Amino acid sequence: MDVGELTPAQARERFRGGVRTPTAGWCRGWTQANLIAVPKRLRYELLLFAHRNPQACPVLDVGEPGAWSTALFDGDLRTDLPGYRLYRDGRAVADLDDVVAHWRDDLVPFLIGCSFTFERALLAAGVPVRHLEAGTNVPMYVTNVPCEATAGLSGPLVVSMRPVPEELVKTAVEVSGHYPMVHGAPVHVGDPAAIGIRDLARPDHGDPVEVRQGEVPLFWACGVTPQAAVLAGGVEYAIGHLPGHMAVLDARDDDYRVD
Amino acid sequence: MDVGELTPAQARERFRGGVRTPTAGWCRGWTQANLIAVPKRLRYELLLFAHRNPQACPVLDVGEPGAWSTALFDGDLRTDLPGYRLYRDGRAVADLDDVVAHWRDDLVPFLIGCSFTFERALLAAGVPVRHLEAGTNVPMYVTNVPCEATAGLSGPLVVSMRPVPEELVKTAVEVSGHYPMVHGAPVHVGDPAAIGIRDLARPDHGDPVEVRQGEVPLFWACGVTPQAAVLAGGVEYAIGHLPGHMAVLDARDDDYRVD
Repeated sequence: MDVGELTPAQARERFRGGVRTPTAGWCRGWTQANLIAVPKRLRYELLLFAHRNPQACPVLDVGEPGAWSTALFDGDLRTDLPGYRLYRDGRAVADLDDVVAHWRDDLVPFLIGCSFTFERALLAAGVPVRHLEAGTNVPMYVTNVPCEATAGLSGPLVVSMRPVPEELVKTAVEVSGHYPMVHGAPVHVGDPAAIGIRDLARPDHGDPVEVRQGEVPLFWACGVTPQAAVLAGGVEYAIGHLPGHMAVLDARDDDYRVD
Repeated sequence: MDVGELTPAQARERFRGGVRTPTAGWCRGWTQANLIAVPKRLRYELLLFAHRNPQACPVLDVGEPGAWSTALFDGDLRTDLPGYRLYRDGRAVADLDDVVAHWRDDLVPFLIGCSFTFERALLAAGVPVRHLEAGTNVPMYVTNVPCEATAGLSGPLVVSMRPVPEELVKTAVEVSGHYPMVHGAPVHVGDPAAIGIRDLARPDHGDPVEVRQGEVPLFWACGVTPQAAVLAGGVEYAIGHLPGHMAVLDARDDDYRVD
């Protein structure tokens, strides 16, 4: 089975059935999204935080309080992602296969663009994607770059990393730059230490990948950033996706391509 | 006195002193903004409405509840605009010189980009701006184009109009397109009837301007759009600027130029 051939509905059915896997490479041609659901009381704060940090937190869709589907996600947000992370009082308290028992009536789900969405375009342009080759999760790192804060939310920028052959860096920047709503062009090219990353071999989320001779690490803003703000802000209650284990939306990747 | 030479602080002092005038041409090189202040209870709804209608409602800044200045507006939002419009239960109930007596503790001020900001760039590119030549307010029209609604807010797109000589239409589109946070490129070029405007000579806000032989009317999204949503949604309480009578921000127009 080539999971890249699945439709969003087919993939969601598998995840609902208990498959826990990173979703890079799944449902080729469809858009993937980060989930962050917060109590209604905090939805303004989160939307403002997203507005002030649009590259890390591009809001693709928002649900009504208590809803578990949205205009762009015709499934069940409580079961149809391959993994979840539950937060209480600013701590990650559990990783879960579903969150049916935890989906409060006042939870407002935000769907935030994910860079997996432009990986099809990278491949089409001849840019290799190492974690796809390896069949692993993308490596993600918490940086020392602060987000623009709101009165109630602040935190560091989180990034994903893909090593790219030097001669293809320009191509990778240009291709991803056409997808601003799924993080767009890299926020940083090269030296990890410049953004506070000590060791590429020890990502904060996901799996490490090999950076080969002649390759440059490219860092893209990552939609796990709101979860870092939940931690930093001591948010009372929140549900996120498990990093790399995304919501597959009923929207084409090309819907988010701009010229 | 050339009002184009004034600093934002100098202009605000004059408005605070009672000058009621449209602000096109004032404070050349500085950014102008629409004001819409709503009760805290509605701030999420308004921010989401703005997010879903970014060309009409680009949010440049938001204040805390009850605050009358913001990071980008180092003045008093209750007095330092040349005119205000007060709304109750979805009706415009008064046009006022100041709103000190009406600024409730729970009001949250939003500052929304204004197309006056790119008029300096239009002039520099050789595109004439008729209402500046005439010394009048820009004409604004309520269209039949619906905004993307939220659960609680909907309404029509409002546009401003500038007649442009046919051979300069492309230039005007390109120049304004470099300023996406102050409405960017026109939303419509040509036939007013195509967007539900019956008579250019009778704008819904501002003053009519002459459209000469060989000129084409260009329509830009307008930051009065949130006030149209306040009307359509029967919003209990809101304060807007008087159309064309803008907040002059402590931010350069070039701050909003992108390449």
